[in-house]
Amino acid sequence: MTETSKTATVDESNPWTTNGTRQIYENPWLRIREDSVVQPDGKPGIYGVVHFRNRAIGAIPIDDEGYTYLVGQYRYPLGIYSWEIPEGGCPEGENNLEAAKRELLEETGLTASHWELLGTSHLSNSATDEVAFLYLAQGLKQGPAQPEGTERLSLKRVPFETAVEMVMGGAITDAMSMLAILLLARKLKK
Amino acid sequence: MTETSKTATVDESNPWTTNGTRQIYENPWLRIREDSVVQPDGKPGIYGVVHFRNRAIGAIPIDDEGYTYLVGQYRYPLGIYSWEIPEGGCPEGENNLEAAKRELLEETGLTASHWELLGTSHLSNSATDEVAFLYLAQGLKQGPAQPEGTERLSLKRVPFETAVEMVMGGAITDAMSMLAILLLARKLKK
Repeated sequence: MTETSKTATVDESNPWTTNGTRQIYENPWLRIREDSVVQPDGKPGIYGVVHFRNRAIGAIPIDDEGYTYLVGQYRYPLGIYSWEIPEGGCPEGENNLEAAKRELLEETGLTASHWELLGTSHLSNSATDEVAFLYLAQGLKQGPAQPEGTERLSLKRVPFETAVEMVMGGAITDAMSMLAILLLARKLKK
Repeated sequence: MTETSKTATVDESNPWTTNGTRQIYENPWLRIREDSVVQPDGKPGIYGVVHFRNRAIGAIPIDDEGYTYLVGQYRYPLGIYSWEIPEGGCPEGENNLEAAKRELLEETGLTASHWELLGTSHLSNSATDEVAFLYLAQGLKQGPAQPEGTERLSLKRVPFETAVEMVMGGAITDAMSMLAILLLARKLKK
């Protein structure tokens, strides 16, 4: 099999047919629906889709000494404590970069003079439409953190290389954090 | 702020109180509930939790020539065509590694003699409990692919470095695929 011969025949069209939809649930963060579908093999089926009302935004801050800042918080759906890059939700009407600046400030008290998009990712595409935007923040200035009521956060300043080791060793498991750290590590190796 | 002084004071206990729960929806893949909670700041609230009934399993195959295999498929929740590593769901009662072997075979027709866990990740921890297990598969042998009825797949064999460039350039956006490729790239650089 060669790369070219296979690529030439790819059909990228939608192989699903949607015959109906019903709303299941809505809260300020999620909207869930169940579609009646015809599957790619022609058989009838259902598809439960979790719509995320906010885009997911992550910001990895790197200071002039090459250190980054990790935020620790309890993640209710998993029942675990998790060390992560600063992240949060960007509601409709807010700009992704503005949301990144807001989340970084809220969770760490940091402002940054240089911002760069590291990448975007679809976090769980079998059942959700959640999309994440991951930023690098540099030129940092420290002020007081301003956490939201739904958050009880800890803050840890570590060398960036330590954060990479935490990813590789399984001490950081949050996908957005792993992605931002690994994207940046790869970028720096170039 | 030093790493040590902050780490010493971290409270990793659950700052949420759950006062009740109601089941919202269930299908073969998802179970959704809404909990009545007291937030970390003491205020009453709700938490919608999306439970994934299957673990997510990904396998990145690398052959003796250093090529990997990407699977192309239409992702219904997003309405986009996506190039990914072979991946799928591991139901309760199935072993993660067995599921990885099964998915690799179904989607590519490949079997592998050497398997290694690259990492695990929580894909979307603000609202879901979805966990992914990412494997490296080597010592490959090609047979016929055996796709499921819900899948219409394309297959592409590319140098591993091309897959890394697709991640860095935004041509691969699926989180599990990005994670497996970046974890392996980092591992190989060591």
